[in-house]
Amino acid sequence: MAHSSLELRSTVTADGTLRINLERVTVPDPGPGELLVRVEAAPINPSDLGLLFGPADMATLKAEGTKEAPVLTAQVPQQLLPAVRARLDQSMPVGNEGAGTVIAAGPDLQDLVGRRVAMIGGAMYAELRLIRPEACIVLPEGAGAAEGAALFVNPLTALGFVETMRAEGHKAIVHVPAASNLGQMLVRICKADGIGLVNIVRSPAQAKLLRGLGATHVLDSSEPDFCGKLEEAIAATGATLAFDAIGGGEMTSIILNAMEAVAARSLDSYNRYGSSTMKQVYIYGALDTGPTILKRGFGFTWEVGGWLLFNALGRLDPAVVQRMRERVATEMTTTFASHYTATISLAEALKPEVAMAYQKKATGEKYLLVP
Amino acid sequence: MAHSSLELRSTVTADGTLRINLERVTVPDPGPGELLVRVEAAPINPSDLGLLFGPADMATLKAEGTKEAPVLTAQVPQQLLPAVRARLDQSMPVGNEGAGTVIAAGPDLQDLVGRRVAMIGGAMYAELRLIRPEACIVLPEGAGAAEGAALFVNPLTALGFVETMRAEGHKAIVHVPAASNLGQMLVRICKADGIGLVNIVRSPAQAKLLRGLGATHVLDSSEPDFCGKLEEAIAATGATLAFDAIGGGEMTSIILNAMEAVAARSLDSYNRYGSSTMKQVYIYGALDTGPTILKRGFGFTWEVGGWLLFNALGRLDPAVVQRMRERVATEMTTTFASHYTATISLAEALKPEVAMAYQKKATGEKYLLVP
Repeated sequence: MAHSSLELRSTVTADGTLRINLERVTVPDPGPGELLVRVEAAPINPSDLGLLFGPADMATLKAEGTKEAPVLTAQVPQQLLPAVRARLDQSMPVGNEGAGTVIAAGPDLQDLVGRRVAMIGGAMYAELRLIRPEACIVLPEGAGAAEGAALFVNPLTALGFVETMRAEGHKAIVHVPAASNLGQMLVRICKADGIGLVNIVRSPAQAKLLRGLGATHVLDSSEPDFCGKLEEAIAATGATLAFDAIGGGEMTSIILNAMEAVAARSLDSYNRYGSSTMKQVYIYGALDTGPTILKRGFGFTWEVGGWLLFNALGRLDPAVVQRMRERVATEMTTTFASHYTATISLAEALKPEVAMAYQKKATGEKYLLVP
Repeated sequence: MAHSSLELRSTVTADGTLRINLERVTVPDPGPGELLVRVEAAPINPSDLGLLFGPADMATLKAEGTKEAPVLTAQVPQQLLPAVRARLDQSMPVGNEGAGTVIAAGPDLQDLVGRRVAMIGGAMYAELRLIRPEACIVLPEGAGAAEGAALFVNPLTALGFVETMRAEGHKAIVHVPAASNLGQMLVRICKADGIGLVNIVRSPAQAKLLRGLGATHVLDSSEPDFCGKLEEAIAATGATLAFDAIGGGEMTSIILNAMEAVAARSLDSYNRYGSSTMKQVYIYGALDTGPTILKRGFGFTWEVGGWLLFNALGRLDPAVVQRMRERVATEMTTTFASHYTATISLAEALKPEVAMAYQKKATGEKYLLVP
């Protein structure tokens, strides 16, 4: 028996139009090793927005189509089209992760029918998802869909930061912007594990939020003495590793210069190549898509690189990755709890005013799709 | 018996004056495990200029002192003084490498008296240098001092690029600016070893020079279709590693974007995080001390880092480093031959008009000090 499902799709056409619509698709019955899941909740993560909107100009968002078949369109500036050459005219499903209830399963997986699962793998902004159990975490009985919707990207990323720190020989972390759902998880992990964490936020309200979670070092980058305080927090924790989701602008550079200033304090003689302390910043997001500006006052012992969860999981010891997944399941309602600003339906996600709200990437605001 | 030696010294005072002078120092007789070398030639490498001039404003260079005791001064802008805090008011010897003749030796090293050696270790802009044999390469009989003066920094750096490439799993190299003495050595090494090399130069004359050495891929960054040609050369060689001595500006970013464009050609489906091909640029110099501008159109699988010969030698297998040193000695007059624009004395190095010339860091121009 085949099943009918509505699925959110995003297309960038060769002539420069972004088109988001709901497509009626047919999903087959699950075969051996497969689960058919009714998706009940899926978060809109910053990492979903790139695929959803591409490089479209948000000022041109427009509702088209009918009430039954709504379509959201926007214009993509011609000069940005080459960057998405590989996806032109392809109708792409969206949604990295979600949670739902298993409504059918292959003959070998019948015991999972009726269970609620957390899932990773794309195409989650849909009513139904055919998936393999390796891409799922089976949730405890009684767990809600909203609780399980975001158990992969943010929790594994936060744990991935800590395991990257351990694997690369650093002892503390600088994180920016730190008030996100991910940042809050990182505060809880570092507090529990006794790891030094320097949180950089952008407002007094965000600082208060993190202090309320027990964060020790919380710095507001909008304050005039931010750089001096950053240097002191780095000195206090010994952080030589940072994760930066802003990407554009000077934050990466400011962090490296502060780390170098701290390292230089313990140099016993002048070295024109800077300290020999390795200083690493990973850029793991692009909240600011403008250029990264590196003012290289930090010697020659430094690295700046991209950080991607999937690459990091591949580099880590498989036993470490398994431990990470187990911890996420165990601590889903505590360490890894997410909070949502609003809950919207698939059809609502296609309304221009709603889309404008969830694409803002405001730190600490997060939308939950309920297909 | 003690020996008298003139030694070039550079001091940045706390009130912001750069002062370069010749200091009369006393050098003791060599003890066991030591050689006393009369320095006969020492190159002025870009890597020496940072220590020599610090962040002084070159427009304020002025001759002071007397003919017998010349002094060169310049002003250091107040806002740049914190960057050299660690060297303030210290009289620092200069000169990374050089060559000379052993005029005395410890009792265990008498067989080296009269031999000419290449040396590394600083303080080479001097008449005499007390040094340990581990920091020397004994030159073949008949080798000239100028031939042996620059056998450490450039030759080991060029070989270090190739060994870094091998150790980190890349198969070809992009180098910029490629017409330097170092770049010429790299052309010869890559030609001999069959390694793909993309040379980026800044003028037709430099391009001609490298083609004359047998370079295959030579691109002039001042040409209007530079980016397209760079992409083709990267596609032809498979280069995913670059060494950039410019540092400031957009060259690093241009290289990463070209590498990503090539990697994207073989993606079978669109990936919003970019290709999974690791793209690495090492910044090993600062010919442009302005900010590094990264326009991140190259996904999330990339690294940009500082590269320092001493760090790289520490990371490489000791057997590889030993092989590198042996190759330098064997090929000193071929692969690793340096060419000099002019030869100057210690006193001449302190003349403002001469200093202006050798501090220009013009690619392919190089000065040799003859103490």
